[in-house]
Amino acid sequence: MSPISPELQRVIDLLAKLPGLGPRSARRVALYLVKRKDTALRPLARALEEAAGAIRTCTTCGNLDTRDPCTVCADNRRDPATICVVEEVGDLWALERAGVFKGRYHVLGGTLSALEGVGPGDLNIASLIERAKPDDVQEVILAVDATVDGQATAHYLSDQLAGAGVTITHLAHGVPVGGELDYLDEGTLAAALKARRSY
Amino acid sequence: MSPISPELQRVIDLLAKLPGLGPRSARRVALYLVKRKDTALRPLARALEEAAGAIRTCTTCGNLDTRDPCTVCADNRRDPATICVVEEVGDLWALERAGVFKGRYHVLGGTLSALEGVGPGDLNIASLIERAKPDDVQEVILAVDATVDGQATAHYLSDQLAGAGVTITHLAHGVPVGGELDYLDEGTLAAALKARRSY
Repeated sequence: MSPISPELQRVIDLLAKLPGLGPRSARRVALYLVKRKDTALRPLARALEEAAGAIRTCTTCGNLDTRDPCTVCADNRRDPATICVVEEVGDLWALERAGVFKGRYHVLGGTLSALEGVGPGDLNIASLIERAKPDDVQEVILAVDATVDGQATAHYLSDQLAGAGVTITHLAHGVPVGGELDYLDEGTLAAALKARRSY
Repeated sequence: MSPISPELQRVIDLLAKLPGLGPRSARRVALYLVKRKDTALRPLARALEEAAGAIRTCTTCGNLDTRDPCTVCADNRRDPATICVVEEVGDLWALERAGVFKGRYHVLGGTLSALEGVGPGDLNIASLIERAKPDDVQEVILAVDATVDGQATAHYLSDQLAGAGVTITHLAHGVPVGGELDYLDEGTLAAALKARRSY
């Protein structure tokens, strides 16, 4: 018989499904929480419950926020003529941390994937094409991952947006800032060499 | 301005404090949860809330359970004459997974540590000495970690229990099952050689 009570086992099972956690780390986290009921367990339970109630998906761009349209879409200082298309909300956060993009976003919710059966209808593509009208939008930046699925999705999107009369761009490939050449793959080095710039 | 709403940032901050998670993995987990409100977020919030209400510390042995005395202490088929002393509840679970120990446990709640200012009064040592009476108990197994703090704690406990008239034992040191000699440290190899057994 397991020495772990069903209530705690349920916490462990749910934690073990989270990305980056397995059964062993889930047990560790569960014990940490149960040993700190008032400083960690209950605050987390309440924060989760509050987030569940408050967070919604922006119907314009697919971002997660407490308001709809989201803070980014509602911010009039942001340029509505440039839409940066990202795969996930986490990518939007990453670009915001970089702090250089002052346009709007569009969150696809994933990438096309024949293998996993994700087709255009499963992503926020129709709403992107709806938004990308030349009257409102000048440029669509396809800021998807440099993976096979990401690039296939970018290819599909640039095909779909081709007739819309907007400029379609993608992020530059090259040497990551702080990166050492010796550790980079050949594809990145070839792309960085090809796209070399003069001082 | 951060694109992350305060409600979600609070979840991220609390997750980032959990053992094994940092800011980056906390963001990943938070996004995973918010994208799956009904299948992951709310069930986890509820399971945590239930565990907070149901789980208590066994006043006899320090185990975590929904009942006090805990399932292990209340199980009459388990030998009350053998007490296995462990540092944490996770160690109790690990030994129960091994499935060979049929006695009772005693959870110290940590190890003595001069560096971290943990003294005998901070651990469940008084209650162990109270339990380890020769009328009831024959053997106390000190199943603490083979670390400096663990061994110092074992040393202190064996001193404290010396006059109680019970046998005090420790776990065997040696080659882990499945372990390769080439990867083992000298201390383990020396201990395994010293404690060699005949076929």
